[in-house]
Amino acid sequence: MSQPVVYGDAISTYVRSVRLALEEKGVSHTLVAVDLVKGQHKEADHLVRHPWGKMPAFEHDGNSFYEVSAILRYIDEVFPEPALMPATPVGRIRVNQVMSIVDSYGYAASITNIFIPRVLVPSLGGQTDEAQVEAAKPQAALFLKEIGRLLGDASYFGGAAVSLADLLVLPVLTYLRATPEGQALLAATPSIEAWMGRMSERGSVQAVMPAT
Amino acid sequence: MSQPVVYGDAISTYVRSVRLALEEKGVSHTLVAVDLVKGQHKEADHLVRHPWGKMPAFEHDGNSFYEVSAILRYIDEVFPEPALMPATPVGRIRVNQVMSIVDSYGYAASITNIFIPRVLVPSLGGQTDEAQVEAAKPQAALFLKEIGRLLGDASYFGGAAVSLADLLVLPVLTYLRATPEGQALLAATPSIEAWMGRMSERGSVQAVMPAT
Repeated sequence: MSQPVVYGDAISTYVRSVRLALEEKGVSHTLVAVDLVKGQHKEADHLVRHPWGKMPAFEHDGNSFYEVSAILRYIDEVFPEPALMPATPVGRIRVNQVMSIVDSYGYAASITNIFIPRVLVPSLGGQTDEAQVEAAKPQAALFLKEIGRLLGDASYFGGAAVSLADLLVLPVLTYLRATPEGQALLAATPSIEAWMGRMSERGSVQAVMPAT
Repeated sequence: MSQPVVYGDAISTYVRSVRLALEEKGVSHTLVAVDLVKGQHKEADHLVRHPWGKMPAFEHDGNSFYEVSAILRYIDEVFPEPALMPATPVGRIRVNQVMSIVDSYGYAASITNIFIPRVLVPSLGGQTDEAQVEAAKPQAALFLKEIGRLLGDASYFGGAAVSLADLLVLPVLTYLRATPEGQALLAATPSIEAWMGRMSERGSVQAVMPAT
Protein backbone atom coordinates (compact mmCIF):
# COMPACT_ATOMS: atom_id res chain seq x y z
CA MET A 1 0.00 0.00 0.00
CA SER A 2 1.08 3.56 -0.61
CA GLN A 3 2.25 5.86 2.17
CA PRO A 4 -0.54 7.99 3.69
CA VAL A 5 -0.48 11.74 3.10
CA VAL A 6 -1.66 14.15 5.79
CA TYR A 7 -2.47 17.70 4.69
CA GLY A 8 -2.30 20.19 7.52
CA ASP A 9 -0.22 22.20 9.96
CA ALA A 10 1.87 20.31 12.53
CA ILE A 11 0.53 22.65 15.23
CA SER A 12 -3.15 21.70 14.64
CA THR A 13 -4.57 19.45 17.34
CA TYR A 14 -6.55 17.33 14.86
CA VAL A 15 -3.49 16.99 12.57
CA ARG A 16 -1.55 15.85 15.62
CA SER A 17 -4.20 13.25 16.49
CA VAL A 18 -4.01 11.73 13.00
CA ARG A 19 -0.19 11.69 13.05
CA LEU A 20 -0.23 10.13 16.54
CA ALA A 21 -2.45 7.32 15.24
CA LEU A 22 -0.07 6.66 12.35
CA GLU A 23 2.92 6.67 14.76
CA GLU A 24 1.15 4.26 17.11
CA LYS A 25 0.62 1.94 14.13
CA GLY A 26 4.25 2.32 13.03
CA VAL A 27 3.16 3.67 9.63
CA SER A 28 5.31 6.30 7.92
CA HIS A 29 3.48 9.21 6.37
CA THR A 30 4.05 12.39 4.39
CA LEU A 31 2.95 15.68 5.96
CA VAL A 32 2.08 18.31 3.33
CA ALA A 33 2.22 21.64 5.15
CA VAL A 34 -0.89 23.84 5.14
CA ASP A 35 0.00 26.92 7.19
CA LEU A 36 -2.73 27.75 9.71
CA VAL A 37 -1.38 31.16 10.71
CA LYS A 38 -1.04 32.22 7.05
CA GLY A 39 -4.60 30.98 6.43
CA GLN A 40 -3.60 28.50 3.72
CA HIS A 41 -6.45 26.22 4.85
CA LYS A 42 -8.87 28.78 3.40
CA GLU A 43 -7.10 28.92 0.01
CA ALA A 44 -8.34 27.21 -3.17
CA ASP A 45 -5.76 24.39 -3.11
CA HIS A 46 -6.92 23.21 0.27
CA LEU A 47 -10.63 23.89 -0.25
CA VAL A 48 -10.55 21.21 -2.95
CA ARG A 49 -9.41 18.77 -0.27
CA HIS A 50 -11.67 20.10 2.49
CA PRO A 51 -14.52 22.38 1.36
CA TRP A 52 -15.02 23.78 4.87
CA GLY A 53 -11.38 24.88 5.02
CA LYS A 54 -10.45 22.83 8.09
CA MET A 55 -7.63 20.36 8.64
CA PRO A 56 -6.43 17.71 8.26
CA ALA A 57 -7.28 16.23 4.89
CA PHE A 58 -6.03 12.74 4.20
CA GLU A 59 -5.05 10.53 1.25
CA HIS A 60 -4.26 6.84 1.14
CA ASP A 61 -4.51 4.20 -1.56
CA GLY A 62 -6.72 6.34 -3.77
CA ASN A 63 -9.03 7.43 -0.94
CA SER A 64 -9.14 11.20 -0.34
CA PHE A 65 -11.25 12.42 2.56
CA TYR A 66 -11.44 14.58 5.65
CA GLU A 67 -12.95 14.77 9.18
CA VAL A 68 -10.57 13.68 11.91
CA SER A 69 -12.79 10.97 13.39
CA ALA A 70 -13.33 9.34 9.97
CA ILE A 71 -9.56 9.45 9.32
CA LEU A 72 -8.74 7.98 12.74
CA ARG A 73 -11.22 5.13 12.31
CA TYR A 74 -9.85 4.37 8.84
CA ILE A 75 -6.26 4.27 10.12
CA ASP A 76 -7.26 1.92 12.91
CA GLU A 77 -9.14 -0.41 10.58
CA VAL A 78 -6.67 -0.50 7.67
CA PHE A 79 -3.47 -0.87 9.68
CA PRO A 80 -4.19 -3.74 12.04
CA GLU A 81 -1.70 -3.62 14.93
CA PRO A 82 -1.93 -2.37 17.61
CA ALA A 83 -5.72 -2.02 17.73
CA LEU A 84 -6.73 1.51 18.75
CA MET A 85 -10.32 0.53 19.58
CA PRO A 86 -11.44 -1.87 22.35
CA ALA A 87 -12.51 -5.30 21.17
CA THR A 88 -16.12 -5.25 22.44
CA PRO A 89 -19.13 -2.99 21.77
CA VAL A 90 -19.37 -2.16 25.48
CA GLY A 91 -15.65 -1.33 25.58
CA ARG A 92 -16.09 0.93 22.56
CA ILE A 93 -18.89 2.98 24.19
CA ARG A 94 -16.45 5.06 26.21
CA VAL A 95 -14.06 5.64 23.29
CA ASN A 96 -16.85 6.70 20.93
CA GLN A 97 -18.42 8.89 23.62
CA VAL A 98 -15.16 10.67 24.47
CA MET A 99 -14.37 11.23 20.78
CA SER A 100 -17.76 12.85 20.30
CA ILE A 101 -17.44 14.89 23.52
CA VAL A 102 -14.17 16.37 22.23
CA ASP A 103 -15.76 17.34 18.91
CA SER A 104 -19.06 18.58 20.39
CA TYR A 105 -17.85 20.48 23.47
CA GLY A 106 -14.21 19.97 24.48
CA TYR A 107 -12.47 21.43 21.47
CA ALA A 108 -14.48 24.66 21.45
CA ALA A 109 -14.10 25.13 25.22
CA SER A 110 -10.37 24.38 25.33
CA ILE A 111 -9.00 25.60 22.01
CA THR A 112 -11.40 28.02 20.32
CA ASN A 113 -12.36 29.89 23.49
CA ILE A 114 -9.33 29.58 25.82
CA PHE A 115 -6.06 28.64 24.07
CA ILE A 116 -6.56 30.73 20.93
CA PRO A 117 -7.55 34.00 22.66
CA ARG A 118 -5.12 33.48 25.56
CA VAL A 119 -1.99 32.31 23.67
CA LEU A 120 -2.32 32.40 19.87
CA VAL A 121 -3.95 35.81 19.46
CA PRO A 122 -1.40 37.65 21.66
CA SER A 123 1.48 35.82 19.95
CA LEU A 124 0.29 37.38 16.68
CA GLY A 125 0.04 40.86 18.22
CA GLY A 126 -3.65 40.82 19.09
CA GLN A 127 -5.45 41.16 22.40
CA THR A 128 -7.16 38.43 24.42
CA ASP A 129 -10.95 38.62 24.56
CA GLU A 130 -11.20 38.18 28.35
CA ALA A 131 -14.99 37.74 28.28
CA GLN A 132 -14.63 34.89 25.79
CA VAL A 133 -12.10 33.12 28.03
CA GLU A 134 -14.15 33.71 31.17
CA ALA A 135 -17.32 32.33 29.58
CA ALA A 136 -15.48 29.19 28.44
CA LYS A 137 -14.03 28.26 31.83
CA PRO A 138 -17.13 26.41 33.14
CA GLN A 139 -17.34 24.51 29.84
CA ALA A 140 -13.67 23.51 30.03
CA ALA A 141 -14.13 22.53 33.68
CA LEU A 142 -17.11 20.34 32.74
CA PHE A 143 -15.11 18.79 29.91
CA LEU A 144 -12.30 17.80 32.30
CA LYS A 145 -14.68 16.62 35.01
CA GLU A 146 -16.66 14.49 32.57
CA ILE A 147 -13.70 12.85 30.83
CA GLY A 148 -12.26 12.27 34.33
CA ARG A 149 -15.49 10.51 35.30
CA LEU A 150 -15.37 8.41 32.13
CA LEU A 151 -11.69 7.54 32.61
CA GLY A 152 -12.38 6.36 36.16
CA ASP A 153 -9.66 4.01 37.36
CA ALA A 154 -8.60 2.95 33.87
CA SER A 155 -5.15 3.73 32.49
CA TYR A 156 -6.52 4.96 29.14
CA PHE A 157 -9.90 5.75 27.60
CA GLY A 158 -9.45 2.46 25.74
CA GLY A 159 -9.05 0.64 29.09
CA ALA A 160 -5.66 -1.02 29.47
CA ALA A 161 -4.54 0.17 26.02
CA VAL A 162 -4.36 3.52 24.25
CA SER A 163 -7.30 4.25 21.94
CA LEU A 164 -8.37 6.77 19.31
CA ALA A 165 -10.03 8.77 22.12
CA ASP A 166 -6.70 9.13 23.95
CA LEU A 167 -5.08 10.38 20.74
CA LEU A 168 -7.90 12.87 20.14
CA VAL A 169 -7.91 14.27 23.69
CA LEU A 170 -4.17 14.66 24.30
CA PRO A 171 -3.35 17.45 21.80
CA VAL A 172 -6.39 19.42 22.99
CA LEU A 173 -5.41 19.21 26.67
CA THR A 174 -1.77 19.97 25.85
CA TYR A 175 -2.80 23.39 24.54
CA LEU A 176 -5.28 23.92 27.36
CA ARG A 177 -2.43 23.28 29.82
CA ALA A 178 -0.43 26.05 28.13
CA THR A 179 -2.86 28.59 29.63
CA PRO A 180 -3.10 29.64 33.31
CA GLU A 181 -6.81 28.80 33.21
CA GLY A 182 -6.05 25.33 31.94
CA GLN A 183 -3.37 24.72 34.55
CA ALA A 184 -5.81 25.59 37.33
CA LEU A 185 -8.51 23.36 35.85
CA LEU A 186 -6.13 20.44 35.38
CA ALA A 187 -4.89 20.76 38.96
CA ALA A 188 -8.51 20.16 39.98
CA THR A 189 -8.72 16.92 37.94
CA PRO A 190 -5.60 14.97 39.04
CA SER A 191 -6.62 11.74 37.29
CA ILE A 192 -6.51 13.54 33.95
CA GLU A 193 -3.18 15.16 34.81
CA ALA A 194 -1.79 11.73 35.65
CA TRP A 195 -3.16 10.39 32.35
CA MET A 196 -1.35 13.22 30.51
CA GLY A 197 1.85 12.13 32.27
CA ARG A 198 1.39 8.55 31.06
CA MET A 199 0.66 9.71 27.54
CA SER A 200 3.72 12.00 27.43
CA GLU A 201 6.02 9.00 27.85
CA ARG A 202 4.89 7.40 24.59
CA GLY A 203 7.18 7.37 21.58
CA SER A 204 4.33 8.56 19.34
CA VAL A 205 3.82 11.66 21.47
CA GLN A 206 7.52 12.43 21.60
CA ALA A 207 7.70 12.09 17.81
CA VAL A 208 4.66 14.21 16.93
CA MET A 209 4.59 16.72 19.82
CA PRO A 210 8.27 17.14 20.73
CA ALA A 211 7.85 20.38 22.67
CA THR A 212 5.27 19.04 25.13
CA MET B 1 -31.33 -8.35 27.03
CA SER B 2 -33.38 -5.53 28.46
CA GLN B 3 -35.29 -3.07 26.29
CA PRO B 4 -33.32 0.10 25.46
CA VAL B 5 -34.48 3.39 26.96
CA VAL B 6 -34.17 6.64 24.99
CA TYR B 7 -34.42 9.88 26.98
CA GLY B 8 -35.44 12.82 24.86
CA ASP B 9 -38.11 14.66 22.90
CA ALA B 10 -39.64 12.93 19.88
CA ILE B 11 -39.15 16.17 17.89
CA SER B 12 -35.34 16.24 18.38
CA THR B 13 -33.41 15.25 15.25
CA TYR B 14 -30.82 13.27 17.21
CA VAL B 15 -33.53 11.48 19.22
CA ARG B 16 -35.16 10.61 15.90
CA SER B 17 -31.89 9.22 14.52
CA VAL B 18 -31.49 6.89 17.52
CA ARG B 19 -35.10 5.73 17.32
CA LEU B 20 -34.75 5.17 13.55
CA ALA B 21 -31.74 2.92 14.20
CA LEU B 22 -33.72 0.88 16.73
CA GLU B 23 -36.64 0.61 14.29
CA GLU B 24 -34.33 -0.51 11.48
CA LYS B 25 -33.03 -3.23 13.82
CA GLY B 26 -36.56 -4.23 14.83
CA VAL B 27 -35.79 -3.52 18.49
CA SER B 28 -38.57 -2.16 20.73
CA HIS B 29 -37.62 0.70 23.03
CA THR B 30 -39.04 2.96 25.69
CA LEU B 31 -39.04 6.71 25.05
CA VAL B 32 -38.87 8.74 28.27
CA ALA B 33 -40.08 12.22 27.34
CA VAL B 34 -37.78 15.17 28.01
CA ASP B 35 -39.61 18.26 26.76
CA LEU B 36 -37.37 20.47 24.62
CA VAL B 37 -39.69 23.46 24.45
CA LYS B 38 -40.19 23.43 28.23
CA GLY B 39 -36.41 23.20 28.69
CA GLN B 40 -36.53 19.93 30.63
CA HIS B 41 -33.18 18.96 29.08
CA LYS B 42 -31.56 21.67 31.22
CA GLU B 43 -33.16 20.44 34.47
CA ALA B 44 -31.36 18.44 37.17
CA ASP B 45 -32.98 15.08 36.33
CA HIS B 46 -31.66 15.19 32.79
CA LEU B 47 -28.30 16.78 33.61
CA VAL B 48 -27.47 13.61 35.56
CA ARG B 49 -27.93 11.70 32.31
CA HIS B 50 -26.28 14.28 30.05
CA PRO B 51 -24.19 16.95 31.82
CA TRP B 52 -24.27 19.26 28.79
CA GLY B 53 -28.06 19.22 28.77
CA LYS B 54 -28.46 17.82 25.26
CA MET B 55 -30.44 14.85 24.01
CA PRO B 56 -30.77 11.93 23.66
CA ALA B 57 -29.39 10.00 26.60
CA PHE B 58 -29.52 6.22 26.37
CA GLU B 59 -29.68 3.18 28.63
CA HIS B 60 -29.33 -0.48 27.77
CA ASP B 61 -28.19 -3.53 29.73
CA GLY B 62 -26.65 -1.43 32.50
CA ASN B 63 -24.88 0.97 30.13
CA SER B 64 -25.93 4.63 30.48
CA PHE B 65 -24.39 7.08 28.07
CA TYR B 66 -24.96 9.91 25.62
CA GLU B 67 -23.72 11.40 22.32
CA VAL B 68 -25.75 10.38 19.30
CA SER B 69 -22.90 8.91 17.29
CA ALA B 70 -21.78 6.71 20.21
CA ILE B 71 -25.36 5.52 20.72
CA LEU B 72 -25.85 4.78 17.01
CA ARG B 73 -22.61 2.78 16.83
CA TYR B 74 -23.56 0.82 19.94
CA ILE B 75 -27.00 -0.03 18.55
CA ASP B 76 -25.46 -1.21 15.29
CA GLU B 77 -22.87 -3.38 17.04
CA VAL B 78 -25.09 -4.91 19.74
CA PHE B 79 -28.12 -5.71 17.57
CA PRO B 80 -26.67 -7.57 14.60
CA GLU B 81 -29.16 -7.48 11.73
CA PRO B 82 -29.44 -5.59 9.46
CA ALA B 83 -25.93 -4.10 9.59
CA LEU B 84 -26.06 -0.29 9.51
CA MET B 85 -22.38 0.08 8.60
CA PRO B 86 -20.71 -1.11 5.38
CA ALA B 87 -18.62 -4.25 5.71
CA THR B 88 -15.24 -2.81 4.62
CA PRO B 89 -13.01 0.01 5.95
CA VAL B 90 -13.18 1.76 2.58
CA GLY B 91 -16.97 1.44 2.55
CA ARG B 92 -17.10 2.91 6.05
CA ILE B 93 -15.12 6.04 5.08
CA ARG B 94 -18.14 7.73 3.55
CA VAL B 95 -20.48 6.83 6.42
CA ASN B 96 -18.04 8.05 9.08
CA GLN B 97 -17.30 11.20 7.08
CA VAL B 98 -20.96 12.08 6.56
CA MET B 99 -21.75 11.44 10.25
CA SER B 100 -18.98 13.83 11.25
CA ILE B 101 -20.02 16.41 8.63
CA VAL B 102 -23.54 16.49 10.12
CA ASP B 103 -22.17 17.04 13.63
CA SER B 104 -19.46 19.52 12.63
CA TYR B 105 -21.31 21.69 10.07
CA GLY B 106 -24.65 20.37 8.83
CA TYR B 107 -26.64 20.46 12.05
CA ALA B 108 -25.68 24.02 12.94
CA ALA B 109 -26.31 25.29 9.40
CA SER B 110 -29.65 23.51 8.96
CA ILE B 111 -31.20 23.40 12.42
CA THR B 112 -29.57 25.93 14.75
CA ASN B 113 -29.33 28.71 12.17
CA ILE B 114 -32.21 28.11 9.73
CA PHE B 115 -34.99 25.85 11.07
CA ILE B 116 -35.02 27.14 14.64
CA PRO B 117 -35.12 30.88 13.81
CA ARG B 118 -37.40 30.40 10.78
CA VAL B 119 -39.94 27.92 12.21
CA LEU B 120 -39.51 27.16 15.92
CA VAL B 121 -38.96 30.68 17.23
CA PRO B 122 -42.03 32.17 15.45
CA SER B 123 -44.17 29.20 16.55
CA LEU B 124 -43.35 30.19 20.14
CA GLY B 125 -44.23 33.84 19.53
CA GLY B 126 -40.72 35.13 18.81
CA GLN B 127 -39.22 36.79 15.78
CA THR B 128 -36.87 35.28 13.20
CA ASP B 129 -33.32 36.62 13.25
CA GLU B 130 -33.09 37.22 9.50
CA ALA B 131 -29.35 37.93 9.61
CA GLN B 132 -28.75 34.58 11.28
CA VAL B 133 -30.71 32.75 8.58
CA GLU B 134 -29.05 34.69 5.76
CA ALA B 135 -25.57 33.96 7.09
CA ALA B 136 -26.34 30.24 7.34
CA LYS B 137 -27.57 29.80 3.77
CA PRO B 138 -24.12 29.34 2.17
CA GLN B 139 -23.22 26.82 4.89
CA ALA B 140 -26.42 24.86 4.32
CA ALA B 141 -25.85 25.00 0.55
CA LEU B 142 -22.32 23.63 1.03
CA PHE B 143 -23.65 20.90 3.32
CA LEU B 144 -26.14 19.74 0.66
CA LYS B 145 -23.61 20.03 -2.16
CA GLU B 146 -20.99 18.06 -0.25
CA ILE B 147 -23.27 15.23 0.90
CA GLY B 148 -24.59 15.14 -2.68
CA ARG B 149 -21.03 14.72 -3.95
CA LEU B 150 -20.40 11.96 -1.39
CA LEU B 151 -23.68 10.18 -2.22
CA GLY B 152 -22.79 10.20 -5.93
CA ASP B 153 -24.72 7.51 -7.77
CA ALA B 154 -25.30 5.34 -4.68
CA SER B 155 -28.76 4.70 -3.29
CA TYR B 156 -27.68 5.40 0.30
CA PHE B 157 -24.64 6.75 2.13
CA GLY B 158 -24.01 3.13 3.09
CA GLY B 159 -24.00 2.16 -0.60
CA ALA B 160 -26.75 -0.29 -1.54
CA ALA B 161 -28.04 -0.38 2.07
CA VAL B 162 -29.13 2.22 4.60
CA SER B 163 -26.46 3.20 7.13
CA LEU B 164 -26.09 5.19 10.34
CA ALA B 165 -25.21 8.21 8.18
CA ASP B 166 -28.56 8.01 6.36
CA LEU B 167 -30.34 7.90 9.72
CA LEU B 168 -28.38 10.88 11.03
CA VAL B 169 -28.93 13.05 7.94
CA LEU B 170 -32.64 12.44 7.30
CA PRO B 171 -34.16 14.15 10.38
CA VAL B 172 -31.89 17.17 9.84
CA LEU B 173 -32.91 17.61 6.19
CA THR B 174 -36.57 17.01 7.03
CA TYR B 175 -36.55 20.14 9.19
CA LEU B 176 -34.46 22.06 6.68
CA ARG B 177 -37.09 21.24 4.03
CA ALA B 178 -39.75 22.78 6.28
CA THR B 179 -38.26 26.23 5.54
CA PRO B 180 -38.47 28.18 2.25
CA GLU B 181 -34.67 28.48 2.28
CA GLY B 182 -34.31 24.73 2.63
CA GLN B 183 -36.80 24.03 -0.16
CA ALA B 184 -34.84 26.25 -2.53
CA LEU B 185 -31.54 24.64 -1.55
CA LEU B 186 -32.91 21.11 -1.91
CA ALA B 187 -34.34 21.93 -5.34
CA ALA B 188 -30.74 22.70 -6.33
CA THR B 189 -29.51 19.26 -5.18
CA PRO B 190 -31.94 16.82 -6.84
CA SER B 191 -29.94 13.70 -5.91
CA ILE B 192 -30.45 14.51 -2.22
CA GLU B 193 -34.14 15.23 -2.78
CA ALA B 194 -34.47 11.84 -4.51
CA TRP B 195 -32.64 10.20 -1.58
CA MET B 196 -35.14 11.82 0.82
CA GLY B 197 -37.94 10.30 -1.26
CA ARG B 198 -36.39 6.83 -0.98
CA MET B 199 -35.92 7.24 2.76
CA SER B 200 -39.49 8.43 3.32
CA GLU B 201 -40.81 5.07 2.07
CA ARG B 202 -39.13 3.13 4.87
CA GLY B 203 -41.19 1.68 7.69
CA SER B 204 -38.73 3.06 10.27
CA VAL B 205 -39.25 6.60 8.99
CA GLN B 206 -43.02 6.23 8.90
CA ALA B 207 -42.95 4.93 12.50
CA VAL B 208 -40.64 7.59 13.98
CA MET B 209 -41.44 10.61 11.83
CA PRO B 210 -45.12 10.15 10.92
CA ALA B 211 -45.74 13.74 9.88
CA THR B 212 -43.00 13.90 7.25
